[in-house]
Amino acid sequence: MFREKIKVLDCTIRDGGLINNHHFNDKFVRAAYKAISEAKIDYMEMGYRACRTLTTDSDFGPWKYCDDNKILEVTDGIESDVKIAIMVDAHRIAEQEFKPVDESPVDVIRVATYVKDIDKAIAMAHKSHDLGYETTVNIMAISKEIEKDLIESLDQIAKCPADVVYVVDSFGYFYCEQIEYLVKLFKEHLPGKEIGIHCHNNQQLAFGNTIEGIIHNANYVDGSLYGIGRGAGNCPLELIMGFLKNPKFQLTPVLKVIEDYMIPMLEEMEWGYMIPYVITGILNEHPRSAIAMRKGADKDKYAKFYEDIRAID
Amino acid sequence: MFREKIKVLDCTIRDGGLINNHHFNDKFVRAAYKAISEAKIDYMEMGYRACRTLTTDSDFGPWKYCDDNKILEVTDGIESDVKIAIMVDAHRIAEQEFKPVDESPVDVIRVATYVKDIDKAIAMAHKSHDLGYETTVNIMAISKEIEKDLIESLDQIAKCPADVVYVVDSFGYFYCEQIEYLVKLFKEHLPGKEIGIHCHNNQQLAFGNTIEGIIHNANYVDGSLYGIGRGAGNCPLELIMGFLKNPKFQLTPVLKVIEDYMIPMLEEMEWGYMIPYVITGILNEHPRSAIAMRKGADKDKYAKFYEDIRAID
Repeated sequence: MFREKIKVLDCTIRDGGLINNHHFNDKFVRAAYKAISEAKIDYMEMGYRACRTLTTDSDFGPWKYCDDNKILEVTDGIESDVKIAIMVDAHRIAEQEFKPVDESPVDVIRVATYVKDIDKAIAMAHKSHDLGYETTVNIMAISKEIEKDLIESLDQIAKCPADVVYVVDSFGYFYCEQIEYLVKLFKEHLPGKEIGIHCHNNQQLAFGNTIEGIIHNANYVDGSLYGIGRGAGNCPLELIMGFLKNPKFQLTPVLKVIEDYMIPMLEEMEWGYMIPYVITGILNEHPRSAIAMRKGADKDKYAKFYEDIRAID
Repeated sequence: MFREKIKVLDCTIRDGGLINNHHFNDKFVRAAYKAISEAKIDYMEMGYRACRTLTTDSDFGPWKYCDDNKILEVTDGIESDVKIAIMVDAHRIAEQEFKPVDESPVDVIRVATYVKDIDKAIAMAHKSHDLGYETTVNIMAISKEIEKDLIESLDQIAKCPADVVYVVDSFGYFYCEQIEYLVKLFKEHLPGKEIGIHCHNNQQLAFGNTIEGIIHNANYVDGSLYGIGRGAGNCPLELIMGFLKNPKFQLTPVLKVIEDYMIPMLEEMEWGYMIPYVITGILNEHPRSAIAMRKGADKDKYAKFYEDIRAID
């Protein structure tokens, strides 16, 4: 099963940060970085490089911005071969600063985009590549896109210098046949580029669909510690490690950081299998209605939520 | 996606009963039966028909025995087209009584067996069939079997009157390629019989693997309310319903019984995604060590559990 070209990215701090407005404290981020390093995971994504003029500082923690100095501070003194990734939203690019790669602790810039923003994403991919970063384009919410538009954007991306292009199942909607179809479609329209896969776990399919992507030659896969991520969360990193059988991987440090940090964290933050996220997943909807519902008094009134959401159609 | 031949069985009371020694109270069993009936699920499995001379009455609740009278009592007055199933362990058959099907509320007898007990299972299948019951043989723990032995038992079962033969991933070990291989192997060696699939959720693959089975023409699939079942549990019934798109299915009653009963039940019973079950799943081990560990003070010492279990090898 071991395929050396497969690279694993941990998105714990980035996608988990969507639950707590990127307020993870330094102690946890250091522990996660140390564990990911000891586990020999290939990449760790620290958060977003958002533009401060588009947000208000008081709302967000440091991992919304991922300043180079903050990353240096939190990784200082930890032995590591892990490459550090940050994410940039194509539709929220303004005055963010990106130094040349050899002046930054960051190795990879991942450009998240909707199909409608593909030109902005491509401009950012050029900028990132020219500064020396490994560059990915992550196409979000493709379960809502018109295929003709998606293909047109793939054909555009094919000409840009992005190294990896990700299939992103933002709503946790896809079944395995659709993942197979999309990964093959991406490969066909993106000759010479690597394909990545980032799944959400609304229907408990994040891991199964990630395997499906791997079978069809996606070589970049995302996971997070204990599956943390907004709503139903992501593909659990520990499951990916068990599947890949790469002899360099060490599972014990990952299990240790899960027991020390992720289990206690569940007392104050919520993610994982919950019926409202199942419902938005099955209906191919953004999880925002489920997230709002889980914050209210009716957080376990699943039948009513299902009836209400269908009544809107 | 809708394939009319696919039949769905709810195993909530039977597999969930392995957590609480089959002590579900009548109120819950009635509510579950009503919901499964309104949802238009095809089958509901009530528990085991165990032999009282092999157990002590005081240890087990009524769903260990599934007496016809008990089933009649709990289903009384509820309008339903659901067929009722009970399970019999081939290695624990002694003096259980089985009436002819037209004198019993039971429609289906499912014979659970290991490969080593296949002759007992086949004898029971003959008996069940002769009494008029729909009959299935569920081959457990096949991830531990030698393939030659497994094939030999399939060739034996091919000659017996069982209607359906199930692939059972008892340890939650299999990935999708293995499910594909096994379902095809079962189909090849069991001409004219239907294939079933029963998955455990140690690696969050129960649903993905059930879909994989369906793709390769398994027509009988098991699920349970909110995935209840021993250890990591089973494939969540609500996910199967969302996938199958059978227009007769009604999801709302299932969501309602989950919110009314399954969520409160989690306060006193434990099932679902937990690292110890991930570990036994990845290592292809019976979950008993993980179940024991979850009852002790070290229930969240995952790293130590992983190191200890590997040191035994």
